[in-house]
Amino acid sequence: MSGFVSFVGSGPGDPELLTLKAVARLKAADAVLFDDLSSGAILTHAGPGAELVAVGKRAGRPSPKQDHVSRLLVEYAQTGARVVRLKSGDPGIFGRLEEEIIACREAGIGYEVIPGVSSASAAAAAAGIPLTRRLCARRVQYVTGHDIRGALPEGLHMAALADSDATTVVFMPKRTFAELAQGLIAAGLPPQTPALLAENVSHPDQRLLRSTVAGLAAALDASASAAPALILYGPLAGEDA
Amino acid sequence: MSGFVSFVGSGPGDPELLTLKAVARLKAADAVLFDDLSSGAILTHAGPGAELVAVGKRAGRPSPKQDHVSRLLVEYAQTGARVVRLKSGDPGIFGRLEEEIIACREAGIGYEVIPGVSSASAAAAAAGIPLTRRLCARRVQYVTGHDIRGALPEGLHMAALADSDATTVVFMPKRTFAELAQGLIAAGLPPQTPALLAENVSHPDQRLLRSTVAGLAAALDASASAAPALILYGPLAGEDA
Repeated sequence: MSGFVSFVGSGPGDPELLTLKAVARLKAADAVLFDDLSSGAILTHAGPGAELVAVGKRAGRPSPKQDHVSRLLVEYAQTGARVVRLKSGDPGIFGRLEEEIIACREAGIGYEVIPGVSSASAAAAAAGIPLTRRLCARRVQYVTGHDIRGALPEGLHMAALADSDATTVVFMPKRTFAELAQGLIAAGLPPQTPALLAENVSHPDQRLLRSTVAGLAAALDASASAAPALILYGPLAGEDA
Repeated sequence: MSGFVSFVGSGPGDPELLTLKAVARLKAADAVLFDDLSSGAILTHAGPGAELVAVGKRAGRPSPKQDHVSRLLVEYAQTGARVVRLKSGDPGIFGRLEEEIIACREAGIGYEVIPGVSSASAAAAAAGIPLTRRLCARRVQYVTGHDIRGALPEGLHMAALADSDATTVVFMPKRTFAELAQGLIAAGLPPQTPALLAENVSHPDQRLLRSTVAGLAAALDASASAAPALILYGPLAGEDA
């Protein structure tokens, strides 16, 4: 008896930013494995018989190891269950989706991926700005500030990230942005490039802070609050909403 | 009497990839201004009294001018209407959102932006692959192959786009991909870099073609079909779904 896994993007946090397809999969689920950022009202769409399993991983906190999550996913599916694996934002963007897909494939379990609203899109929408602009900002790029060690990833393409014509969104930026900004400025990004810090995007306690790359680098350090955040920099980050 | 404009992402085309918030805004709308790719079943969520106005712009076809769309948007809102401006995918990504926001601001009309599922996320999900990978592909970037003249935009950051470790998604790629690929290869991208052409993403007639950058460049020319498409290239584009 073989179950099926739906990897489902739950969007940035606002339960109204779930897709109709995500709601349908939650309603039909036998088991829902969810992250910290995919909890609360989002889970109320699951049926009363569904098993709800927290497998939260949140930057800076002890949390279940990735291979434990993958094993759990396979074990639930092997009971024949329809499993929903909820991931915040879009599951394909810094969601560690690949490891879990590989675990399903190796166990011969069928899966599908249901895309979600990225928190990058939600941050820009909250600020009332687009991520691209017709005559400049023709490129938008997403990068993570945080590798599995919690440090700035090695081998970042600094020339690409220092392009002042692009819109760049840094996921999980807080602990490493000062270090990243130093590298960006060394690679030619003007320190006064507009930058926007977006915390708890689309949640009731959302907070947007408009500054510059140098300004945010000075304001953030390893003691920054644990609230999930993004930093968006580039010409559009300075626009008034 | 002043109306209000909701810029709403309708997602990549599958009506099930609408968000709950998009559905709510459609239900409450007095007027819905929609693009070609945001039509069909998506519009059935609008109430029976809503005025539905096609303002389609589709690559390669004659279509209403952007300033005409902006003027129409303002005119509807100035009647006091709740106006929904539906845009396919996420409105902040190559959606010409900025021009219409500026028109609202200049006319003193309030607006909000409701993010949607990007067609880039939907293309990767359809292929069963993520857009990022933990140990490489830590950067994902979106670029348009098509400026307002229908030509490849000038001033693209070729070093950033030729980074074989990133995942790159080219929006509206068909007519210019051969020219772009030539530039990418000249800038050091291996011609055999895996590439995926995704047409009509999330629609019943979706088509995915796995190839290489050089392979797609040879296969596509100005006579390519008019079906909306994306090209995704980078290490993950070669993964089996």
